[in-house]
Amino acid sequence: MGRSSDAGERLVRTAARLFLTRSFQHVGVEEICAEANVRKGSFYYYFKSKTELAKAVIDLHASVLWASLDAVAEGTPTRRLLAMASAIEAIQQGFEERHGRIVGCPFGNLAAELSTTDPYLGEELAAVFGELERRFAVVCHEVAADGALRPGVDPDRLAALLNAQFQGLILLAKVRGSSAAGVGAALHELIARHVDGGEAEYRPPATTGLRAAGPRG
Amino acid sequence: MGRSSDAGERLVRTAARLFLTRSFQHVGVEEICAEANVRKGSFYYYFKSKTELAKAVIDLHASVLWASLDAVAEGTPTRRLLAMASAIEAIQQGFEERHGRIVGCPFGNLAAELSTTDPYLGEELAAVFGELERRFAVVCHEVAADGALRPGVDPDRLAALLNAQFQGLILLAKVRGSSAAGVGAALHELIARHVDGGEAEYRPPATTGLRAAGPRG
Repeated sequence: MGRSSDAGERLVRTAARLFLTRSFQHVGVEEICAEANVRKGSFYYYFKSKTELAKAVIDLHASVLWASLDAVAEGTPTRRLLAMASAIEAIQQGFEERHGRIVGCPFGNLAAELSTTDPYLGEELAAVFGELERRFAVVCHEVAADGALRPGVDPDRLAALLNAQFQGLILLAKVRGSSAAGVGAALHELIARHVDGGEAEYRPPATTGLRAAGPRG
Repeated sequence: MGRSSDAGERLVRTAARLFLTRSFQHVGVEEICAEANVRKGSFYYYFKSKTELAKAVIDLHASVLWASLDAVAEGTPTRRLLAMASAIEAIQQGFEERHGRIVGCPFGNLAAELSTTDPYLGEELAAVFGELERRFAVVCHEVAADGALRPGVDPDRLAALLNAQFQGLILLAKVRGSSAAGVGAALHELIARHVDGGEAEYRPPATTGLRAAGPRG
């Protein structure tokens, strides 16, 4: 069983990489099995379908995202809100380092590609975006309770704004082949526009030395 | 030649609909030809490849977008910036009415799906996003010259913020199966946060009576 469960995990990790660097429909089960070194006949022992494999890929990315955001636990609410933006950027920079170019948000990519054709995966993705917005909202409400929201700013709307802005920024960076490195700073700037003291807390993320590279070059 | 050029246009319009309601890779040349009532053998008379057809689809959507934004010519710069957001929402509502559900931005969908695998279409899409941001920036600079930007707001950064926010909003609305009807209002709210008098100028867009519907229901 050790080897078996290892094969299932290899399939998920391989699919996660191939879906992220290309797209769901650009990659077939046969190629995933070959890259994961799993016999194609074994695939359906682990997953009923490619859709179920994609569900496992979404769960894998989500568990990384939630763990990364859970690690943001210290400081004032404003500092934690800024740290959430930095944590999201750090995940994107990790993808960029591993794959040699910006690849987009794993949830956003699948959402754009599959929302209209796969209601099951669409629901899964909507749940992830809902949870991310909920987590933003929890901290935005803490910022509000701290008296740090600027006049007229609603915490739930700020959460929705940040959630959407991240998706738009990362999609535009992906199509431009630019770096993920500016995404955190842009989110910090947006937070500073809505939160008193947001500017003072800003820290530029560590640079990775990476520039736009890879297939677009 | 009349019938010939008509067949080429039917291919573009059919592909535009099928790519938008499903995705580029979900749809094959054979199906596009069948739906457009064009013999498959004739396809390559009009287009070298499916990629060239997608290029024509991008051009078609872009021409609609630029014409719609060109029509926004009256009023103060602030009013024109708000009207740009409403024009973009109106295009999305048109898609929603025609296709029975929100389908996303035609450029954003293709960008998410193809940026890493098709550098040629990626460049085309990046050019469209660049032009949209440039058009936002022109009006944001006019708002600035009018003295209506709030303190600390940079017109180019506001343009980038609006461009990204639209992409994020429409992607999230797509995966949630909600209506495009709130997108303009959300952009107006963001403008009001950065522009003096932006609130006073706000007009809710005409409602279409459409609700979230279609395949997700």
